[in-house]
Order: sequence, then C-alpha cells, then structure tokens
Amino acid sequence: MIELVAFDGDDTLWHNESIFSMTQQRFSELMEPYLEDDDLHERLFATEMRNLRLFGYGVKSFTLSMIETAIELSDARVTAEEIAAIIHAGRSMLQHPVELLEGVEDAIERVSEHHPVMLITKGDLFDQESKLARSGLGERFDAVEIVTEKDETAYRRVLTRRGVPADRFVMIGNSGRSDIEPALALGAWAVHVPYHITWEHEKVDETAFASNDRYRRIESLAELPAVLADIAAA
Amino acid sequence: MIELVAFDGDDTLWHNESIFSMTQQRFSELMEPYLEDDDLHERLFATEMRNLRLFGYGVKSFTLSMIETAIELSDARVTAEEIAAIIHAGRSMLQHPVELLEGVEDAIERVSEHHPVMLITKGDLFDQESKLARSGLGERFDAVEIVTEKDETAYRRVLTRRGVPADRFVMIGNSGRSDIEPALALGAWAVHVPYHITWEHEKVDETAFASNDRYRRIESLAELPAVLADIAAA
Repeated sequence: MIELVAFDGDDTLWHNESIFSMTQQRFSELMEPYLEDDDLHERLFATEMRNLRLFGYGVKSFTLSMIETAIELSDARVTAEEIAAIIHAGRSMLQHPVELLEGVEDAIERVSEHHPVMLITKGDLFDQESKLARSGLGERFDAVEIVTEKDETAYRRVLTRRGVPADRFVMIGNSGRSDIEPALALGAWAVHVPYHITWEHEKVDETAFASNDRYRRIESLAELPAVLADIAAA
Repeated sequence: MIELVAFDGDDTLWHNESIFSMTQQRFSELMEPYLEDDDLHERLFATEMRNLRLFGYGVKSFTLSMIETAIELSDARVTAEEIAAIIHAGRSMLQHPVELLEGVEDAIERVSEHHPVMLITKGDLFDQESKLARSGLGERFDAVEIVTEKDETAYRRVLTRRGVPADRFVMIGNSGRSDIEPALALGAWAVHVPYHITWEHEKVDETAFASNDRYRRIESLAELPAVLADIAAA
C-alpha cells in the first residue's frame, strides 16, 4: 500500500549540481592569479561548511562563500572587478534555465495516476519556488514542501501533518544524505536515482542503506513506475 | 466570529528594521571615502529593488546588494578589506539576538486562549526559521507559514488550505503593504501595529485602507485582546 509519493527537486527532477560545477569552473579561472598550492575546491567547500549554519543552502549563500574564499585566498588582493565577476556568476546561476532530467514529466504523470505526488525540496525558498515555477511542473504536484534541511524530523513533520504512516510513504531522490537515509530511518521506502555529480556535503556511505529491504535503486525515472508497482504489492 | 488569528514576524513580534538601519549606518561609514554627491541610501535601495526579483528578501540578498552598490559607487575602487567588512556586517545581522517587542508574549498568550494563532512571515526561509527558533515563540503558534511574498494570493492559499473563510480571519502586522492591504482586499480583518521605522519598499498610502470597516489600528500589542473582542462581537 502506498499513500504518498514524494520527489526531490534538485538533481532528481532538474539539473542543479552541473550548474554549481560550471560556476566553480568560472570561479577557478577568476582565482587563477592568486592560486599557489591551494586546492581551491577544498577551500571553497570549507568556507561553505563554515557558513552553512548561518547562511543555509542556496545560490546566495554559495555566492557569499565564493567572495569570502576569494578575499581570504588572495590575502585581500582580489579586485572589486573580480568580486563583481563572482557576483555576476552567482546571478547567472539564478537566471539559468531550469532543465528537466530525461523522462521526468512522463514519470510524474504515470505515478500520479495511482498515487498522490508531492515535491519535497530543500534550500533557499525563493530559489526553489522560482525553479519550480520555471520548471513548468508546479501544477503536477498535489503538494509542495520547501524545507531548510531534509532530515528525519522534517520528513516526520510532513507525514504527521498529512496523517500518512511512514511505511506507506515513498521518497524518490538522488541524495543518500537528504532523500534516502532519513526516509529509511523513519521506516519509509526510498528510491535512489543517483545523479552523475554529487556535492561533497551530500555524500554518504551507501553500504549503510543498500541492504535495507525498503531501499530501491534505479538508473533513471523511467524505471520508477515498475518499482512503485513492486512496492505497492509488497 | 473569528476562526484564525495570524501575526506577522518582523517588526510586529521582533525588531528587524532597526537591525537593517544599524547595518546601513555601518555601510555609510565604510563608503564614506567614496561618497561624492550620491545619496547612498537611495543607491542601495535602487540596487535592492533591481535585485528583488532575482534574490528575494532577506539578509543574504541585502548583503549582496551592499557589495554591488559599493563596487558601483566606488567605480571598483572599493578594497577587498572593505568588502570583507560588508560581509561581516551581514553576518552580524544573522547572529544578532532576536529582541521581542514589548508585550508580545503576553499578547500571543491571551489571544491563543480564544483563537488558533499562527505566524505568517515573509522572507528568507532559513533566516525566518532561525529567528523564530531564537525568539522562543516557536511553540506558541498552532501553525507557521513562511512565504516569499505576502500578497493576496499567498493569504488566499493559507486560508483555503485551512478552510477558513476570509471574514473570519484576522491579520496583525506592521506593514501596510504586506499585512494590511492584502488582508483587507481578501475580505479579512486587519489590525495595524505600526513600527517606528518602515522600509521604503513597505510604505503605502494609508488613506487607501484607513477607512475600511475591517481595519483597526493600535499602538502596541497590549491593545490587541480588546480589539479582537470587538471584532469577534461584530
């Protein structure tokens, strides 16, 4: 029995990490004159992690972290023009077209023929609402929840509010940390659709959940209807 | 009959504009070497308005707008140290203690003896959740909604989801634009509690609603229980 099926947004329905990757590439080019032995990627990630508790996720946080990293790394030699270029790169991310992953629309449509479907996505409220609107998928979902962190508490809140028992809930997403682990920990089902890039922060040891009875792994959302039929019959 | 009473957060329950004001003061000091005939306040506001559609509200957006304004205003002469000081000012806003306005706890408690109470606040999800947590008021509300914009559509969505007719809903807040106008436009009641500073963007012509039958104006939340009793009897 399935009462509710929820999709993650970033890198499950639409491309996201690839845009961050592209911006990091641009950031590397800008920082080239100041780089000595530093691993830029590592420095930026350390700044992001330091800022996470204060800034949360999202493009604006990422942009501020790039600026801070640039100032620190260059011993304050970075120019105002270079900082303007970093802000421009951040701005471009927010204006980047939302590109759906292959088969997304068809998968949501097929699933929603049998089950209520919702979107549970984390990050900056403004970014996420804007992406959802630009994705054209807004009307396809029976409900949308945008949360600051996708942990067990957040999922429990969503299910309690809807009166859905955990074992009748299926979470679908690319992130072991945000979509799979907390859903399984609650006693829900989790369908893992890995994306080709995973942000360092979202990486977890997959062996911890790969053997869970309620864990499924698929290569693309095209396989989803068959997997859900299998879960529904369980 | 009242079925639901909602409070705004910023400058209704806790101080907010005063923190932005303090930061703008610090920003003025930092920009002093570059200021000629420019009205810094006006330049910053113009940048904020230009960025609103892309960044949304909140401290991170404001910080990015200060940096952009600094670069433009100084013809890119602003130093990395000065930009670091701007980011530091933004960071301080996020760490600033949440200071409740006078009488807030008592007012919420007295209202909740008679009606379900909720918080409807706009802005950055992460900032707002963090402020609510630090305010100590989290447990006092029956529901919380954090939205990107407080317009008629947003209020209608909240009421529809809860099955509350507009004329049995009371919105309480300091902002004519975000709390009062949209509530009255829906056919709901609005209790205006002006704050001593109003952000330029939130200013509206009050004569447009001051004569509305469902408009009430109070000086402090201490007057709220009496006003609600009056509305409930209407």
